Amino acid sequence: MLKVGIIGVGTVGTSVAEILRDNADVISARAGVDIVVKSGVVKNLNKDRGLDISITDNVDDILNDDEIDIVVELMGGVEEAFEVVKRALGAGKAVVTANKALLAYHRYELQDIAKDIAFEYEAAVAGGIPIITALRDGLSANHIESIMGIMNGTCNYMMTEMTNNGVSYDAILKESQELGYAEADPTFDVGGFDAAHKLLILASIAYGIDAKPEDILIEGIDNVRSEDIAFAKEFGYAIKLLGIAKKDGNEVELRVHAALISQDEMIAKIDGVMNGISVVGDKVGETLYYGAGAGGDATASAVVANIIDIARSGKSTPMLGFDKPMEGSQLVLKPTANIESKYYLRINVSDKTGVLARITKIFEEHNISVETMLQRKSTDTSANLLISTHIAKESDIQSMIDEIEGLEFVNARPVMIRIV
Amino acid sequence: MLKVGIIGVGTVGTSVAEILRDNADVISARAGVDIVVKSGVVKNLNKDRGLDISITDNVDDILNDDEIDIVVELMGGVEEAFEVVKRALGAGKAVVTANKALLAYHRYELQDIAKDIAFEYEAAVAGGIPIITALRDGLSANHIESIMGIMNGTCNYMMTEMTNNGVSYDAILKESQELGYAEADPTFDVGGFDAAHKLLILASIAYGIDAKPEDILIEGIDNVRSEDIAFAKEFGYAIKLLGIAKKDGNEVELRVHAALISQDEMIAKIDGVMNGISVVGDKVGETLYYGAGAGGDATASAVVANIIDIARSGKSTPMLGFDKPMEGSQLVLKPTANIESKYYLRINVSDKTGVLARITKIFEEHNISVETMLQRKSTDTSANLLISTHIAKESDIQSMIDEIEGLEFVNARPVMIRIV
Repeated sequence: MLKVGIIGVGTVGTSVAEILRDNADVISARAGVDIVVKSGVVKNLNKDRGLDISITDNVDDILNDDEIDIVVELMGGVEEAFEVVKRALGAGKAVVTANKALLAYHRYELQDIAKDIAFEYEAAVAGGIPIITALRDGLSANHIESIMGIMNGTCNYMMTEMTNNGVSYDAILKESQELGYAEADPTFDVGGFDAAHKLLILASIAYGIDAKPEDILIEGIDNVRSEDIAFAKEFGYAIKLLGIAKKDGNEVELRVHAALISQDEMIAKIDGVMNGISVVGDKVGETLYYGAGAGGDATASAVVANIIDIARSGKSTPMLGFDKPMEGSQLVLKPTANIESKYYLRINVSDKTGVLARITKIFEEHNISVETMLQRKSTDTSANLLISTHIAKESDIQSMIDEIEGLEFVNARPVMIRIV
Repeated sequence: MLKVGIIGVGTVGTSVAEILRDNADVISARAGVDIVVKSGVVKNLNKDRGLDISITDNVDDILNDDEIDIVVELMGGVEEAFEVVKRALGAGKAVVTANKALLAYHRYELQDIAKDIAFEYEAAVAGGIPIITALRDGLSANHIESIMGIMNGTCNYMMTEMTNNGVSYDAILKESQELGYAEADPTFDVGGFDAAHKLLILASIAYGIDAKPEDILIEGIDNVRSEDIAFAKEFGYAIKLLGIAKKDGNEVELRVHAALISQDEMIAKIDGVMNGISVVGDKVGETLYYGAGAGGDATASAVVANIIDIARSGKSTPMLGFDKPMEGSQLVLKPTANIESKYYLRINVSDKTGVLARITKIFEEHNISVETMLQRKSTDTSANLLISTHIAKESDIQSMIDEIEGLEFVNARPVMIRIV
């Protein structure tokens, strides 16, 4: 019998305990051993969670308990969780976590510490979708060419509602908060940071790349407005918040941003709160993984799968697929300024003669080639220019946007969304 | 260093050797050891495969070679492959296979023989998609409620072309044969047998169910005609060849057949030669896996992933997830006659008065409730009745079809396609 201690018995932790209890028949048959939750750490000892486990508010009661084989870390946060996990590993306990922020900052230190003991984190990326297993084990024969995914259900829900039901950004944000999909401060989701944490984990498995959130391009969906959705639909695109990792020679580009993506792509067809991640390998071609990216039971499904894996095989695979940094590969992070893309721009201008000529001249001066241009009335005295470009360089686009923003007839900083 | 012997160096075998050579950098970094192909068994010793491995036409040269750690079985067929694999396992060699027919008939015997040695088969189901890993490891915390998938790329290509380009069944079958997607005798694909082999493997992992192809419902796409595609489109359906495993109480139903499926479902959006498998777990909800189901490189990607897994961990998981049959679960195969579904029927009738009344009366007598009915002109003297039903029992539908076929004004046995 294996004994589990759960640090943080909230929504996910309660689901973990429930699954280990309710699905014990298949779990023990698959694991080859019974697995039980012995105890859990909570903040509030008085709350009834409907679980038959011993409860404590002192993390030492689990870390010092010699009977506990596996520690499930669901406390969240970065540094405090890092200390707790280090202590658990140091005490010889296997660790399973759903904590993406912890991994976004400390995954390589953790891989070093967990050289001989299992440390697993399937639930940290895309909730119930077994994307870590698929990428690290299932696609291990491939050089990974790209990863592109919808890694944040809140943003995908908002984009889907704006597209299908014509809801405004502000209205759908409010609704998402009421439904519990978005936090009171929604920045972590709509600003792209949650997706970035997940992307960094996948990039380590695919490329052995060590990068932190500060090192990569992170933008959110907070600039997307109904006008942009309308443009996208007219030209056969969906707008999604995407996490993208792409190999380009010996450079890897990592970026999170809203993107226009052709409606024909499988990723574009993923709607609502669902997550989906497309992985292209040099041998296997495109594969795609779809499912619930959040929620107590879906996330706990991944936590428990890790526990079963540990029961079956103990430590088998290096935590991140290979050592840090991937030796001999020479892969380096591409500087953000060098990323190339097609771009969509929305420029709000005063409706005067000569404006179009001035704008198109600036595009030309920055070596940016226009693919389509629409002018749409905004108010009685202003218009929106909706422009898509051919492939251009991030630094050229940014300096052009800076210049356009300064023009006397431009009413706001242009909004830019990349096209993938 | 691990040494591999490949039995059957055809398209997939050549790709396996190429991947182990071309991607040796990432493979050795991920496996923690170098992996090389030492030798291969071929039928024709004179053909140049562009590989730097020793070639033999005698399988004993690999089975008796003490230096070979892992045997890759790609010879195909059932009984001869079974003997070869048993000898390899008996000689203490790990085995990796892509042979779905072998597993459809002998998987439980192989699991018994391979109790203490690795036997892996990721490539046997859905080619490059790591569905075995996902289902066996990634979703192991769940009771699996259903599996529904496009497991045969040839059929999906044909259905897609018929739907999108209005091609006839006969024309697209001919084109598929010219493109090499379908064999000269296409029965194995279009008759549903290939998909059935894969479904049986997945059903063992999900349910611990031992069944052979003869035990389950297997139909193909060979009855589907343009009229059916037109009806499907009109009512918001796609037509796909699906493999379906579904738990209903303590019974598991296993079936392969063409099916009308709502265009809103992710599975319905999978077009062309691609495969896609949807798995619903009681905790994780729906997850879906998409990618190339065939082709040398995609299939070899899965074979090599298994080799890497064996290098990393040796034997870790019971081959089929749990023992045969899943002890204590009491799951049994549902008799085909008891399967329930909605149905679509195409009945070609002489265009006479009274026909509709007779047909609808027969539906009533068999307790089958009609949902929609269309009459479409077929020739000057005949018409097609296109009928969809509410939920009905397979045995009732079959006996009704038998009765309708015998009517004097019915020109051919009615065509039935299930609706899921």
